Amino acid sequence: MNESPPPTRNKLTREDCARRDRADPLAGFRARFHLPDGVVYLDGNSLGALPRVAAERLRAVVEQEWGRDLIKSWNIHSWIDLPKRAGEKIARLVGAAPGQVLVADSTSVNLFKLLAAALRLRPDRTVIVSERDNFPTDLYVAQGLIDLLGSRHTLRLIDRPEDALDAIDDDVAVVSLTHVNYRTGRVFAMKDVTAAAHAKGALMLWDLCHSAGALPVALDACDVDLAVGCGYKYLNGGPGAPAFLYIAQRLQETIRPPLAGWMGHAAPFAFDVDYRPAPGVARNLVGTPAILSLAALDAGLDVLLDADMAEVREKSLALGDLFLDLVAQECGDYAFRVVSAPRALRGSQVALGHEHGYAIMQALIERGVIGDFRMPDILRFGLTPLYVRYADIWDAVATLREVMASGAWDQPKYHKRAAVT
Amino acid sequence: MNESPPPTRNKLTREDCARRDRADPLAGFRARFHLPDGVVYLDGNSLGALPRVAAERLRAVVEQEWGRDLIKSWNIHSWIDLPKRAGEKIARLVGAAPGQVLVADSTSVNLFKLLAAALRLRPDRTVIVSERDNFPTDLYVAQGLIDLLGSRHTLRLIDRPEDALDAIDDDVAVVSLTHVNYRTGRVFAMKDVTAAAHAKGALMLWDLCHSAGALPVALDACDVDLAVGCGYKYLNGGPGAPAFLYIAQRLQETIRPPLAGWMGHAAPFAFDVDYRPAPGVARNLVGTPAILSLAALDAGLDVLLDADMAEVREKSLALGDLFLDLVAQECGDYAFRVVSAPRALRGSQVALGHEHGYAIMQALIERGVIGDFRMPDILRFGLTPLYVRYADIWDAVATLREVMASGAWDQPKYHKRAAVT
Repeated sequence: MNESPPPTRNKLTREDCARRDRADPLAGFRARFHLPDGVVYLDGNSLGALPRVAAERLRAVVEQEWGRDLIKSWNIHSWIDLPKRAGEKIARLVGAAPGQVLVADSTSVNLFKLLAAALRLRPDRTVIVSERDNFPTDLYVAQGLIDLLGSRHTLRLIDRPEDALDAIDDDVAVVSLTHVNYRTGRVFAMKDVTAAAHAKGALMLWDLCHSAGALPVALDACDVDLAVGCGYKYLNGGPGAPAFLYIAQRLQETIRPPLAGWMGHAAPFAFDVDYRPAPGVARNLVGTPAILSLAALDAGLDVLLDADMAEVREKSLALGDLFLDLVAQECGDYAFRVVSAPRALRGSQVALGHEHGYAIMQALIERGVIGDFRMPDILRFGLTPLYVRYADIWDAVATLREVMASGAWDQPKYHKRAAVT
Repeated sequence: MNESPPPTRNKLTREDCARRDRADPLAGFRARFHLPDGVVYLDGNSLGALPRVAAERLRAVVEQEWGRDLIKSWNIHSWIDLPKRAGEKIARLVGAAPGQVLVADSTSVNLFKLLAAALRLRPDRTVIVSERDNFPTDLYVAQGLIDLLGSRHTLRLIDRPEDALDAIDDDVAVVSLTHVNYRTGRVFAMKDVTAAAHAKGALMLWDLCHSAGALPVALDACDVDLAVGCGYKYLNGGPGAPAFLYIAQRLQETIRPPLAGWMGHAAPFAFDVDYRPAPGVARNLVGTPAILSLAALDAGLDVLLDADMAEVREKSLALGDLFLDLVAQECGDYAFRVVSAPRALRGSQVALGHEHGYAIMQALIERGVIGDFRMPDILRFGLTPLYVRYADIWDAVATLREVMASGAWDQPKYHKRAAVT
């Protein structure tokens, strides 16, 4: 008769992690990315890794399409449809039926478009609700828009996620929140907050920068009005990849684009003198799309679409659990605070607070464990299940312990701030 | 004693053209571009050809920077400075001292930024002057901005370039014109129109889409206030390359960016709650720049910077003269109108009108002579002296004659409109 293991919890070992990698149904995806040797990359929430297919596609776009077929490529390689084509791929990742998502411009520019559109759809209301700890560009764009429109509107900032519902009243035109907080990884209850906004007659705009491709999102099912998101984080679109925007079908024909450009015209190549918006979401295109960046994003999306998003979410949570368990086991002496949200509200990252967070992160990076630092004292570790292994988490925490135990983090070079942190 | 040739004008031959190519001081540049065999490319005013160095640079950016160095590239490969670095290269091509040009977003988005800024700098004025035959997006953006601001402003369109000065009165906030007309190639007198705008207290905004890299531009010397331009035409930056904007030094600190994004913040990585504009022109950045597209543009600019812009202009005019002379000589029977401006006002293109212009252009393209068509009946041929040869012009006109003489243009397939014309 077999003996069961004792019910007490054993110390985790690297072999435990390697065993989980061997059983991982997503393990095969890692080979589809180009990853440098000797690096544990936990910053895919800031810049996703390079999908091999993106490098190949970009080479073809440059050499065969731009180089050989030149201007004809707009038609023969359908460059003109790329914003919509890539948008439809993203739609599948964020729970949107076809015809509602476009790839265009940057997240900031798309926020401007949608906030401006929202204010015009609620002309008698004067308040934009957001969160003080929202990603700053979301706040800046709102501030800039309010200033442009003559300061008739105000930006009402909540201090805690729990305050969202109370902040929504009959003066609110639009509630603009980021689904997953960029520092803490905390997830808002999309459906509940959206319903609360609607109950007061406000529109709901979600920023999906830290959720698209990271966890299941159900825009249509949550009855969301507007959304934006980033192409270069969990979507692996490359540095500064174009962003996306979502506009619920029911609102599309009511949108008067504040950025009225020829690519959003009903007939761009008629060269009419007067602007006439294209039908549907396409009117929210503005200038000529950045095809090289867009093609890289479009190609990489196929990798993500081959994965089961429920499996991605499950592994992401498991990686996060492992990380936090190992920090407790291996680094209990070093005064790290867990900043991450509780498991049920945790996005695809973990965050630790430490007063020397900046220097510690620089020491980690020099040792090949790449996370990032966010003000004021947060070490942020992104978890991207398609290319991060359980054993990588072990190695990351082992390196963290070594950096702390040796005092190696406290060297002057690690305290010097870089331009981009 | 040698006999002089008779003073009557001889018919031009292909050998005359080839001789001019052998004497061309810019001839060596062609090898720095990737150009397909058997093609005469006269559409560099729509999409510039691929500089070989751009393909190399992009490969390095993808494989070594994104793929290997990942997020660290923002610092170690100075991605963060790329909008400014590429901007300074363009500054040298448009007669701007350092610190006034940035690469960012699309031309349309940059137009919005600068028109909005201009209206705020002239709050008591209500008119934007432009030209009915301006490139449509310039008009659409102005219409969209006026609509967003509550229709207090009006767009005053002149019907003929000659009317520009008369249209500027004390109600005008900003005069927004394209330096070189996209259809006719006609060049505005930048210095005179700018002075006329200033005389009435208005600001002057020039769109340089068809001038930057095509002919000498002297923004500072002409006392221009604001300018925008395109990266993918004569600057050879690749399809949908990011655009640029210029703000005269004297105005920069007065600009309140309507698109207030984190990349234009004084300290983007402080993650402050409140927007504070960066000093100088940098505040006009918005979101994360599209590094892949930007790197291709940046690399290709070096080719143009190696050329003498006076030589480029001289050859451009010579190519245009040759084209028009050959059309007169070879195609006099086929009812082409010269739509191009007179030589002294001609940009870097020639334009012919013909009632069957669309079909004729499709027949030319199928035969490897690539120009484009613009409504209502214009065949447009871009002249890019770094990679177009005099013999190419011969071959283009010879093909045009063949298409007309054979009646080959009048096949149904050439009348079918493509998505992008």
